[in-house]
Amino acid sequence: MRPRPSSSTPPWTASPAMPGVDAADEFETIERLFRPLAHPQWGRSLIDDVAALPSRPGHDLILTKDAMVESVHFLPDDPMDTVARKLLRVNLSDLAAKGAEPFGYLLACFWPEASGWLEREAFAAGLAEDQAKFGVYLLGGDTVVTPGPASFSLTALGWIPQGRAVARAGAAPGDLIVVTGMIGDGFLGLKAARGELALEDERIAALTAHYRTPEPRVDFALAVREYAAAALDVSDGLIADMGHMAQASGVGILIDLEKLPLSRAATAWLETRVDPIAALTELATGGDDYEVIMAVAPNAIDGLKREADARHLRLTVLGVVTEGEGVVVRYGGEIVEVTQTGWRHG
Amino acid sequence: MRPRPSSSTPPWTASPAMPGVDAADEFETIERLFRPLAHPQWGRSLIDDVAALPSRPGHDLILTKDAMVESVHFLPDDPMDTVARKLLRVNLSDLAAKGAEPFGYLLACFWPEASGWLEREAFAAGLAEDQAKFGVYLLGGDTVVTPGPASFSLTALGWIPQGRAVARAGAAPGDLIVVTGMIGDGFLGLKAARGELALEDERIAALTAHYRTPEPRVDFALAVREYAAAALDVSDGLIADMGHMAQASGVGILIDLEKLPLSRAATAWLETRVDPIAALTELATGGDDYEVIMAVAPNAIDGLKREADARHLRLTVLGVVTEGEGVVVRYGGEIVEVTQTGWRHG
Repeated sequence: MRPRPSSSTPPWTASPAMPGVDAADEFETIERLFRPLAHPQWGRSLIDDVAALPSRPGHDLILTKDAMVESVHFLPDDPMDTVARKLLRVNLSDLAAKGAEPFGYLLACFWPEASGWLEREAFAAGLAEDQAKFGVYLLGGDTVVTPGPASFSLTALGWIPQGRAVARAGAAPGDLIVVTGMIGDGFLGLKAARGELALEDERIAALTAHYRTPEPRVDFALAVREYAAAALDVSDGLIADMGHMAQASGVGILIDLEKLPLSRAATAWLETRVDPIAALTELATGGDDYEVIMAVAPNAIDGLKREADARHLRLTVLGVVTEGEGVVVRYGGEIVEVTQTGWRHG
Repeated sequence: MRPRPSSSTPPWTASPAMPGVDAADEFETIERLFRPLAHPQWGRSLIDDVAALPSRPGHDLILTKDAMVESVHFLPDDPMDTVARKLLRVNLSDLAAKGAEPFGYLLACFWPEASGWLEREAFAAGLAEDQAKFGVYLLGGDTVVTPGPASFSLTALGWIPQGRAVARAGAAPGDLIVVTGMIGDGFLGLKAARGELALEDERIAALTAHYRTPEPRVDFALAVREYAAAALDVSDGLIADMGHMAQASGVGILIDLEKLPLSRAATAWLETRVDPIAALTELATGGDDYEVIMAVAPNAIDGLKREADARHLRLTVLGVVTEGEGVVVRYGGEIVEVTQTGWRHG
């Protein structure tokens, strides 16, 4: 056996279409747009079929995979660079909420037949920008043409010290329910991007930007790992995701709606609404916030707050973990009925 | 900090559609169809956002990701259980050709709005069948609705002893070019599935079955790792994939077309063709075979053959690695012009 060169090259495979289907440009897409994004060691020179990652002793590998479809998860008007960045960010958000540090990702692109180089170049440019921002690299994937809408699937990878991943399960009665950042800008951002909001231009721009490129709490992952008993990110909607935590942990959660942390844009929107309870409920069920919900033992809250302060990150205690099940929402001490579907409310 | 329950649960996240888009059934799809496929340890009880894999000291993690789209990579008439099995198998084929042993996968499903439970149940049943056959488990993923065609992306994971992954690069002049199994049944199988072949029913059925559920050489992975200097699987087409190996290795490859290993069905088809060179070239460029092409040092060939014999697997020496570049194809000692696009030939 002669020594083999390293096989640690990116597993790009431009899946061939069946004969008769035009699959032009897939190889060039890889070569020209994606190869420069590959990991400097594992993706340096050659195309191969797989990525080979050295193991990291004492660490677990954390994996997550999210898919996005045009007109379902993003708008046809959304710029492709922000579509790419959002795809990466929603996956990094999942890792951060588990306490993991991201290092790479695999990507599947389904390009519409009518799409051209401009879209693909913008997509790759968006990835390049966020790779640099978050310190991750492309490890491999697939690129194909589809007669359907632009669709993407991304598998993100991160490391965490062995056994330290923070689960949805783990919340116990008496824990505080804490959330990072602001809630509702995802919901309002979608409305803003759709032109459905009557607010000042500056607010519309801020909300649209938040919808298109939410801020995953990557730099807070170590604090989550250190101080949270249970955690997940807000993707389905604050209340629905708290419901997931409650169910997984076998507990109930009680929160006060008036404690919802709101951006200035959300506050401005709230002032235009007749029914504050209905409006706050919309913000708490709209989803797409990508903040971190944590259950935190009372003796751990000071440590968590110090970590947040050091990062100028807002932390809000919304309520507590209780015996029982489900999420109970109060406003001014009175119980509010909220359905668990995430975006419908009664 | 209280002890945390294991977070090693499957990272299923039914990505919520934007408000106004009907994303019904995604949670039930996970709960009823995919949860039973999850890894018994890592996916036992609860839904979480990520999978957490313990590291395996002394081993590299091998990853590959392939995507499939209806009417592009599979036919609208293909049964959904075989679509699922093919999706898994083409990824397992990538791992096997690198010498890796598969253990799990993440899956993204894009279901057409009009699809119902029957398709999803058949898809899950196909996965269940092949999970048992190949000893792999579902680790997580995403399931969404699309206004487009049924599409899927799968990220397969395997282990290999550290540094032992077999690359495309690594072929050296003097190595023998060896292929497993038969070549051309993928190409003919697609024709058979499309009703474009005039052969006996039995042959049509065999070819269609091969196209729908190709046989990844999972049980030959250890032999590949032990004896091959370079390897990859036949997905684009035998000649195109040999071209990838030649390019990655900085060598040329010379093969004799008449040595192509043909199934009885392919032999029967060949007998119906006027021009045997054109016909053999079609088989050698058609792709979708999922056999393993290896460059094997002459002193390693006996060992490789013993491994193949023990598994009743046919091995064929097609040619040799040469100085130079590109793939040279001969028939009866004369050079045949073949373009490298995989399915067009001059």
